[in-house]
Amino acid sequence: MSPRTPSTPRPSETALMERVQAHIRALPESGIVEVMKYGQQREGMIPLWAGEGDVPTPAFICEAAAIALEAGETFYTWQRGLPELRAAIARYMSQLYGVDEEPERYFVTGSGMQAITTAFSIALAAGDEILVPSPVWPNAPAAAQRIGAHPVFVPFSYGPDGFRLDMARMEQAVTPRTRAIFLNTPANPTGFVATLEELRAVLDLARRHGLWIIADEIYGRFHYGEGTRAPSMHDVMEPEDLILFVQTFSKNWAMTGWRIGWLEAPVWLGQVVENLIQYSTSGVAAFMQRGAIAALEQGEDFLAAQIARARLGRDIMGNALLATDRVRLVKPQGAFYMFFGIEGQDDVRRLGLQLVDEANVGIAPGTAFGPGGEGFMRLCFARSPAQLEEASRRLVRWLETPHTSHAHR
Amino acid sequence: MSPRTPSTPRPSETALMERVQAHIRALPESGIVEVMKYGQQREGMIPLWAGEGDVPTPAFICEAAAIALEAGETFYTWQRGLPELRAAIARYMSQLYGVDEEPERYFVTGSGMQAITTAFSIALAAGDEILVPSPVWPNAPAAAQRIGAHPVFVPFSYGPDGFRLDMARMEQAVTPRTRAIFLNTPANPTGFVATLEELRAVLDLARRHGLWIIADEIYGRFHYGEGTRAPSMHDVMEPEDLILFVQTFSKNWAMTGWRIGWLEAPVWLGQVVENLIQYSTSGVAAFMQRGAIAALEQGEDFLAAQIARARLGRDIMGNALLATDRVRLVKPQGAFYMFFGIEGQDDVRRLGLQLVDEANVGIAPGTAFGPGGEGFMRLCFARSPAQLEEASRRLVRWLETPHTSHAHR
Repeated sequence: MSPRTPSTPRPSETALMERVQAHIRALPESGIVEVMKYGQQREGMIPLWAGEGDVPTPAFICEAAAIALEAGETFYTWQRGLPELRAAIARYMSQLYGVDEEPERYFVTGSGMQAITTAFSIALAAGDEILVPSPVWPNAPAAAQRIGAHPVFVPFSYGPDGFRLDMARMEQAVTPRTRAIFLNTPANPTGFVATLEELRAVLDLARRHGLWIIADEIYGRFHYGEGTRAPSMHDVMEPEDLILFVQTFSKNWAMTGWRIGWLEAPVWLGQVVENLIQYSTSGVAAFMQRGAIAALEQGEDFLAAQIARARLGRDIMGNALLATDRVRLVKPQGAFYMFFGIEGQDDVRRLGLQLVDEANVGIAPGTAFGPGGEGFMRLCFARSPAQLEEASRRLVRWLETPHTSHAHR
Repeated sequence: MSPRTPSTPRPSETALMERVQAHIRALPESGIVEVMKYGQQREGMIPLWAGEGDVPTPAFICEAAAIALEAGETFYTWQRGLPELRAAIARYMSQLYGVDEEPERYFVTGSGMQAITTAFSIALAAGDEILVPSPVWPNAPAAAQRIGAHPVFVPFSYGPDGFRLDMARMEQAVTPRTRAIFLNTPANPTGFVATLEELRAVLDLARRHGLWIIADEIYGRFHYGEGTRAPSMHDVMEPEDLILFVQTFSKNWAMTGWRIGWLEAPVWLGQVVENLIQYSTSGVAAFMQRGAIAALEQGEDFLAAQIARARLGRDIMGNALLATDRVRLVKPQGAFYMFFGIEGQDDVRRLGLQLVDEANVGIAPGTAFGPGGEGFMRLCFARSPAQLEEASRRLVRWLETPHTSHAHR
């Protein structure tokens, strides 16, 4: 950069910021970041704030990627994904959901997040509305805002069964601008798992109003009820229903850092999805896709162990918290988060910082997850039993100590 | 999927397609694909249609990534990129362009393509216009269309110096909806390289109308004039200019398939860029970023060899074609494409298929690159001298054989 001419007026950065598109400027910063930044350097801190386990990607997956790298799989590849990976996804989905094995329905994306942005680009334009039951993983509504669309939050009801979809509220929230419903089940952060009846009710609503359903079933295997997976839109849909499924390798196979997932869409959308991938990231590295194939084809034992570990983590943390009789908590039916309130603690943003200081445990405030999250905290229990035992001891000790309110903290 | 109830009417796929957002449905399919599909299975075919060399990623880069994978760098990471990579980019840019070494200006993206979509999201909304000198790499205008904005093509002038920016046409193309200028220099497919005077003229236009400049200088090292790089917006800009630079590791270090690049933006845009990354792909794999660090820190010798090879390829192909006296060609000043016309051959889409059949060489039709590409063909010369010698022999033989017009082919 050449030295500035002194005579050139330099507009303030505030003024420059007005040149950024307003809906982009308005994108929210992650509400988890504050407590993470506050706590992440503390010695002995147990971080339960992120949606991520503590196990690195298993070696057989890393090795498959490394071998492909060494073999020179470093050139441009299919925009829709390697045919071998699409076939492997189709086999996996067919075995798990009894659906037709149809590789052309599956499109490899550079993260589940990209699957969501791709689905939203198909369904939504600027000014459109999407119904979002909340509390919700904040990246989903933010992705709608990113394209100028409006997330319409529909709070879950909360009762003895925990968080449930409120279909009357959903129905009332529909307007002439509504184009889609975002349905995450099993859900982050609430642990809500839709029943077949609830899935049918959402599908019926979508059909009557001509809405797309963006089905985020990425935690489908982390299900603490009967069967090997949670109920799915696959169980109730017809081929002509407008449903886009977003998926990821992140949670099942401990591949959060890889950024690889898939979009499942009707075959007739193939060229549209290919174009959206082409004009956003132009595909996913072939060598990463080799790792993903290994995950699908050799990953069931690893996944079973992950699920068993999460189930154990849920019991360790859930039982310890419930025994204090000071929390508002229904053990989650799916996913791997405990979403709970603490008696007398309403300012959860402050509480997150306080628990860092006084319990050395990192927990995300429920306010990071949109309307309905007030008064709740989210912790991730996809971690080692020993660490969760220690974290629960710290939390219980804190809960059993009298605390004055720190209104001016 | 449950069996369909016979009473349910099944709308045709055409009707369903109308439920896709119109500007997304209208996204163009790549114009290169037709000839690639037609020719890619031919025995002995020499494929010069893609913007990609024939050398896989060098081992020292692959190894750095494989080591990080094995070491368990598989968790979520910084949305803006690893601090070490941002520092390495800052050092590289500082050495090359004499700019301040300021890591906070650089944001790691999952491809140069994602850097473009991120920049466009900042500058453009639905209905806005962006000036795009053309012929142009088609993904850039398509990325504008993806967010509902309109690329306004401004054809280059063409003369004895090859393709040049037509500043009068640029000026005339500005309307109240214009928000940005996309400037690719050195340019794909034309080989145009902006002079310092031309860069100043574009900057002046942008300043007068309050426009963003999206500067795509990814071929800056592939420059056949003097110096180690082409002239750059860095040479003429002031700190307060609204310039977003898009960059990629793809071309310099033979990493096309990796999907990793960077966006260079003013520091005050940091949180905006982070949010855009968070809500589109949520970052780039840390292990890939280790490969990118190796490319920057140990890649100069490899890059020098790549540039020398491209310069040789340019001479082999350029001299052979010019000697026939049957082509319209000015040897490119930068990038690694020959963009040329063949006397008497106006239907270049058909010509691409014909050259597959009759010369066994794969070349992309200029029509794939937007207005101004009619009557031209693009070939990539970033390949081995031996292969380019053979391809040029085949093309020269074809050019020197009389051809009847195949109007009904």
